[in-house]
Amino acid sequence: MARTTRRIVLAAPATGLPTPATFRLEEAALPALQDGAALVRTIYCSVDPGVRSRLSGGASYAAPLRVGETIDGFCVGEVIESASARVAVGDRVALGGGWAEHVVFPGRGYIQKIPHDRLPLSTWIGALGVPGMTAWFGLKRVAALKEGERVLTTSAAGPVGATAGQIAKAMGASRVVGVASGPEKAAWLRDAGFDAVIDYQTTDDLAGALKAASPDGYDVLFDNVGNAMIDSALPLMRMGGRIVISGQVADYNTPPEARPGLRNTAHFIAQRLRMEGLVVFDDLRGFAAAQEELGALIEAGAVKTREVRVRGLEAAPQAFIDLFADHAAFGRRIVEVGPEQ
Amino acid sequence: MARTTRRIVLAAPATGLPTPATFRLEEAALPALQDGAALVRTIYCSVDPGVRSRLSGGASYAAPLRVGETIDGFCVGEVIESASARVAVGDRVALGGGWAEHVVFPGRGYIQKIPHDRLPLSTWIGALGVPGMTAWFGLKRVAALKEGERVLTTSAAGPVGATAGQIAKAMGASRVVGVASGPEKAAWLRDAGFDAVIDYQTTDDLAGALKAASPDGYDVLFDNVGNAMIDSALPLMRMGGRIVISGQVADYNTPPEARPGLRNTAHFIAQRLRMEGLVVFDDLRGFAAAQEELGALIEAGAVKTREVRVRGLEAAPQAFIDLFADHAAFGRRIVEVGPEQ
Repeated sequence: MARTTRRIVLAAPATGLPTPATFRLEEAALPALQDGAALVRTIYCSVDPGVRSRLSGGASYAAPLRVGETIDGFCVGEVIESASARVAVGDRVALGGGWAEHVVFPGRGYIQKIPHDRLPLSTWIGALGVPGMTAWFGLKRVAALKEGERVLTTSAAGPVGATAGQIAKAMGASRVVGVASGPEKAAWLRDAGFDAVIDYQTTDDLAGALKAASPDGYDVLFDNVGNAMIDSALPLMRMGGRIVISGQVADYNTPPEARPGLRNTAHFIAQRLRMEGLVVFDDLRGFAAAQEELGALIEAGAVKTREVRVRGLEAAPQAFIDLFADHAAFGRRIVEVGPEQ
Repeated sequence: MARTTRRIVLAAPATGLPTPATFRLEEAALPALQDGAALVRTIYCSVDPGVRSRLSGGASYAAPLRVGETIDGFCVGEVIESASARVAVGDRVALGGGWAEHVVFPGRGYIQKIPHDRLPLSTWIGALGVPGMTAWFGLKRVAALKEGERVLTTSAAGPVGATAGQIAKAMGASRVVGVASGPEKAAWLRDAGFDAVIDYQTTDDLAGALKAASPDGYDVLFDNVGNAMIDSALPLMRMGGRIVISGQVADYNTPPEARPGLRNTAHFIAQRLRMEGLVVFDDLRGFAAAQEELGALIEAGAVKTREVRVRGLEAAPQAFIDLFADHAAFGRRIVEVGPEQ
């Protein structure tokens, strides 16, 4: 076989919203496998808003992608060559690999054999992948959610927010409120068990709507949106409340100095609030156990999932741009890169 | 004896900086003691910047003082009547009582017998009182400071900041940096063991100065100043860093919507930062043990204390106003209300 693949790389650092010119599709040679490495044929890859923070070149605080590097994404695929003791040819695996038709597992880091086929394969880069694990460990470890507490999730129809709200209900939260944009999302979230949904698009008094949706306030804010959202919720946080900073989709495209600021920080003292940032790879060792529990909730219908699929690697850039621009579609953005069989 | 006392009450809610007209000195009748109560003759009372948040009337988020209520402060004094099993006539005690020549302990809440006379009496509303306990539990419980870590304290020449920095050194911090205003404070803090002090008055690049003072960054920010200070420090926080919100002296006089905002919140995710507000009365049960340890450090000279004293109850309002306006004096502000004997 020809040892080449197709991949999408950073063509030019993005300032503000990414555009098609941010990305470039190219053919690239695949290296010979080193000891411990494996070659995976991509079946699905994911489109993740958090990647935005790596596309700004040197202006970003995070380790930026360099021009010519493959765009980050999670993949599920089939192992087609292996020099690794961890995976064998024919295994279905999930790994970080990026937007490419073939990805090389370098022998270290995150790769996971998919343990059963009772759920759709794409679930392993969705509700049982990074978004779902983020929801799980954000609630369990960072927020330490307790039964009877009140939970607010934002960007609630996204794969993290929707899963977080449903996990919170399954953990015994007494009230789960979501903020999302548009009536279709609200309807879907209510169907998924959210007690109330605030339509961000049609609400001109967010603070009032947050209060009306949970008159006793919130014990946990699981935020995927950014500073303006957190600032609106701070006055409604209850004594000992926790704020999980999971994502900042409204702020990724804005340089820090132009972002809205948190001003209601007096509530940190008055209500003894705690706010903490989350990167779920800190919890890698807990993934398998969490996936077993969360997988059971999904199989039982207690946690619903939703996907937006696009076909072909070349569709990935527009799917990424749509994350920030197209507020109608919602769900985990999945690129169908290759056939399941 | 005449059962009256003199006290200072809220005369008019403050907007912006408090002024002499915010306060009123009045003569007031003392009530008969209920079961469990005690009457204390005030010797010293404290002037606390955090009280500012209660002086704005209904516009404040915290339970505001009403016009005619005694201004908050901590007192040390002598029990002169007691219907309480907790204290006896002649005991020296510390309690929350406010700016008054006599204060009634109502039978519930914070009152503490002063266990020994090896330290000046005023220490019990200073380094062994709320400021010192705030420093102690902020570092020990909220920040969970570990040996070898790097600590930044702000308003560092104030009683909380100065004590926090010295406790951090005693706990084995590898580097303690303070932010304070003016060369006298910097000199005193260096003498007290701070590794570096940034003079806020003469620094036009605070972020640069913070970086230069600890090139490897900070594990703990113990902040007494407010949003602008925290925002400058966020990019310098190390992985897993903790921010203790202990006070917000720069923001108390500004309504929330006009305060500077935290914009550098992306670092919460990138560095897994945790920020938490502190009210030290949550730690009341630990005071006695903490005072024993911290008292030993003070007796040994490992923690230095400093006071600014004014004489007479009527001097309390100006001492309070000076907290926000007079940046030359520094140390715990103590009002000499009555004689020690």
